[in-house]
Amino acid sequence: MHMLKVAILGYGNIGRAAEQAINAAPDMELAGIYHHNDCLECISGNIDVMLLCTPTREVPKFAATMAARGICTVDSFDIHGQIPQLRAQMEPVCRANKTVSIISAGWDPGTDSMVRALLQAMAPKGLTYTNFGPGRSMGHTVAAKAIAGVQNALSMTIPLGTGIHRRMVYVELEDGADFKTVEANLLKDDYFAHDETHVVQVESVDALNNVAHGVNLVRSGVSGETHNQRFEFNMEINNPALTGQVMVSCARAAVRMKERGQYGCKTMIELAPVDLLPGTIEENVKALV
Amino acid sequence: MHMLKVAILGYGNIGRAAEQAINAAPDMELAGIYHHNDCLECISGNIDVMLLCTPTREVPKFAATMAARGICTVDSFDIHGQIPQLRAQMEPVCRANKTVSIISAGWDPGTDSMVRALLQAMAPKGLTYTNFGPGRSMGHTVAAKAIAGVQNALSMTIPLGTGIHRRMVYVELEDGADFKTVEANLLKDDYFAHDETHVVQVESVDALNNVAHGVNLVRSGVSGETHNQRFEFNMEINNPALTGQVMVSCARAAVRMKERGQYGCKTMIELAPVDLLPGTIEENVKALV
Repeated sequence: MHMLKVAILGYGNIGRAAEQAINAAPDMELAGIYHHNDCLECISGNIDVMLLCTPTREVPKFAATMAARGICTVDSFDIHGQIPQLRAQMEPVCRANKTVSIISAGWDPGTDSMVRALLQAMAPKGLTYTNFGPGRSMGHTVAAKAIAGVQNALSMTIPLGTGIHRRMVYVELEDGADFKTVEANLLKDDYFAHDETHVVQVESVDALNNVAHGVNLVRSGVSGETHNQRFEFNMEINNPALTGQVMVSCARAAVRMKERGQYGCKTMIELAPVDLLPGTIEENVKALV
Repeated sequence: MHMLKVAILGYGNIGRAAEQAINAAPDMELAGIYHHNDCLECISGNIDVMLLCTPTREVPKFAATMAARGICTVDSFDIHGQIPQLRAQMEPVCRANKTVSIISAGWDPGTDSMVRALLQAMAPKGLTYTNFGPGRSMGHTVAAKAIAGVQNALSMTIPLGTGIHRRMVYVELEDGADFKTVEANLLKDDYFAHDETHVVQVESVDALNNVAHGVNLVRSGVSGETHNQRFEFNMEINNPALTGQVMVSCARAAVRMKERGQYGCKTMIELAPVDLLPGTIEENVKALV
């Protein structure tokens, strides 16, 4: 079997999880772990795919650099509103260099996006609600840490159904800080002002640390003229482990699409599920269809 | 917008549901409804896709006939063990005639297959259980009707978890038939001998008629080295309405793949979800990713 050579750029939670998923894959070998300060132009050409496990804001720069060298990339760029723009930027770079970049390959955006597209195809009219959590929101946690007087913080996202979320914010205060003042400032912050938010003072945020997350995605819709078609997708998962695994599965799809000449920048709704799996199409048809 | 011309062969429950889904689609027009005794060679060439809504055993013949004429087909061939063989038979016909046939496009096989493939990619090691029902099993209903003394029958599939199912068989007896004898013969039948089966005598099977069905598909698996990743997909649906809708959504994918030169015979795990949806890729990326 041809072993795919998969490299990792960035070695935080996601990079470490991706390393484990590569090691567990029957058809891949780790082709190196790189730091974002490394000279990317110096990296050996003997890489099939580079997984971009950097902070999300650094993804566009590295994706373009690697694609310009003809190397496939996979990232988990997760700023939903900017995904169409990133795709449009990367598309001509990938085509010009005959390569494939898979962007926003995590669980949301990513596998949830595939489920949303599938449910839309099964019941074209209706409403889909994606309910997140319970789990840590990185964006809200960073916003909470930025409030004056906060030493450390954790913002948990709690699903209330129909896409509405509660924020449970656990704060560890700096010496001398006043909880009531911190709470008032946090509740006024634009990140929290629009959701039901509760602020709880704790001795140690570190003691609450847990990378568990979840999704409850529901759709009620219409197939043809038939209403009340009901669908639900749930998961309770270790967040970085799933993100790293999804990126690694997408590495396989990127190489296959490149080999077939399907060059370009792809989101996960543009991928066939079988391309994510090891083995031949025939083997997977037999096992899964 | 170019309107896809979609025809229907066979006008039973699925054909009628497909007609409704075509009429509801913004990008399709009905190009005719045909009977399986019609002269297929006489059918106008002005058809983009033919939906094969015939009994499943007649699908291979019609799929090959239409593909030989270069017309895309979609069917919901549902004999799981024979799908790889049908795909292998159709593949060279499709390639030789530069067309696309999508086979086994329903909810199982079909959309469930896509979910199983996706969950396998998210947690490559582990167990997936597909639990069906409550809902009518066509195969078991036919088997029950074939028992001597049975006037009419309905076999319901009841999910007991971990892929184990109970059969609830409702029988309407012929005049003079003995229930205990019918029950004993039914329980010995190979269709029922291996599952927990209960036989219930009723006055009217027709009074129980209901096309509701359901699925509970669960996976617990390992992402990288992280165990206990838990996933669940549920649906409660009108069976022919969903099957017809899935076939119509696949009609769109068949034409797009043909236009891109991706000729061949495809199961749903070989399709990108976005190809099932109306609108441009860019519109769907913005709305769903």
